[in-house]
Amino acid sequence: MVGAGPGDPELLTVKAHRLLRQAEVVLHDDLVPAEILALAGPRAEIVNVGKRCGAKGIAQAEINARMIESARRGLDVVRLKSGDPGIFGRLNEEIDALEAAGVPFEVVPGITAGIGAAAALGVSLTDRRKSSRVIVVTGHHAGTSEQKKPDWKNLAREDATLVVYMPGHDFAGLRAELLAAGLGAETPAVIVSRATTPQQLHQCTTLGEIDKLPRMESPAILLIGRSLERARRESNAQDASPDLDRVELILSSL
Amino acid sequence: MVGAGPGDPELLTVKAHRLLRQAEVVLHDDLVPAEILALAGPRAEIVNVGKRCGAKGIAQAEINARMIESARRGLDVVRLKSGDPGIFGRLNEEIDALEAAGVPFEVVPGITAGIGAAAALGVSLTDRRKSSRVIVVTGHHAGTSEQKKPDWKNLAREDATLVVYMPGHDFAGLRAELLAAGLGAETPAVIVSRATTPQQLHQCTTLGEIDKLPRMESPAILLIGRSLERARRESNAQDASPDLDRVELILSSL
Repeated sequence: MVGAGPGDPELLTVKAHRLLRQAEVVLHDDLVPAEILALAGPRAEIVNVGKRCGAKGIAQAEINARMIESARRGLDVVRLKSGDPGIFGRLNEEIDALEAAGVPFEVVPGITAGIGAAAALGVSLTDRRKSSRVIVVTGHHAGTSEQKKPDWKNLAREDATLVVYMPGHDFAGLRAELLAAGLGAETPAVIVSRATTPQQLHQCTTLGEIDKLPRMESPAILLIGRSLERARRESNAQDASPDLDRVELILSSL
Repeated sequence: MVGAGPGDPELLTVKAHRLLRQAEVVLHDDLVPAEILALAGPRAEIVNVGKRCGAKGIAQAEINARMIESARRGLDVVRLKSGDPGIFGRLNEEIDALEAAGVPFEVVPGITAGIGAAAALGVSLTDRRKSSRVIVVTGHHAGTSEQKKPDWKNLAREDATLVVYMPGHDFAGLRAELLAAGLGAETPAVIVSRATTPQQLHQCTTLGEIDKLPRMESPAILLIGRSLERARRESNAQDASPDLDRVELILSSL
């Protein structure tokens, strides 16, 4: 169970890099870039077990079955997950299946997308002067019935940095909820798309203006909090750069 | 500004490994293990800028001055921080100083201790069935006057995993606050000391029993939440293993 990190192949851990090179089978998520898969050995069998096609429940059972089957054939299997396996990666579900089948495993952590995004922007998620905690949530849960939207009222705080994975597109709704929860309209906010890859795009704004953010390509991360003030300052310069042209290009292609 | 990860040299990113090899000056935190510092090139100047000795304010100013001075001498400087630079690493403060001095920098993320600890235990911090968010806090703030203890009442929730850095030793107080905040006494809790290193120790328990946890060596991470049920199951086997002898050894040496 290996974390592939946020996108940049150099942000793999040394251990993930070694295991990938040695793997005989690589079962990878949709979002793992080709540059990372290319690091696997020439004889490795590489299988995309991404969940975009087909019904969710069936796909997860198929991933489990595939891992177990390959392991039982005596092969070294890397289950390569975007970011860190333990952050929104359904790791426990896959481990439950491995344990039930008696397949030994190890978890190799990865740079999770939110941490990779902050580093790429040159900002800190905590700030001794402004933000003493980090709250990692998903914006939406793709329809699993037992889960609900975050109760922003209890989560949103002036001294926390919110890291929203899969923020969705309802930024007007999110804005209303966070303002109602007591965050100031001037709280810095940044959206980062495909962080740490050559296709990285980001847009800095404030909470009061997030409803005007462009729709960006997945994977995207939304960061909100006072520790991000630096990112906001920097983006003023970049707003006039070719980056914005690229945002418009993407927008026009939607 | 480079993350050194949680301790295991193989959990450096490939990029951190490369920059460390190329560095002419390495300014590192106290907690970075010797095995990682040994990866620096033979001609690199390696300086411990840890904050254990001396007054905090002076030390931070000295670190800033040292970084700026080395950069102005035209040297490649790696400021090597435990874990991830952006999680409780005073990154923004050091960046402010670099920017004020006109020194260009880049942030290279690292595996933060909480994520490294969870992976080392083979557990996920989120679980689609049990925990939909991760809340990263520090247990205490070493006396900076503008910060207070976390308000556990708003943070503690059944569907969140708490990751407590620098948990301190007042587990009886923490237990009382989290129970008062509504968490169940049966909520799984794990403390991990020196995660991912050969000296790693962990002890699994429940929130209701954390006041009986042994005092463990720094750095330690306390994880609390329902997604950790697996870790609790596993520790039942380990409680009878030599691990516990080592815990007792540490306790008797305190």
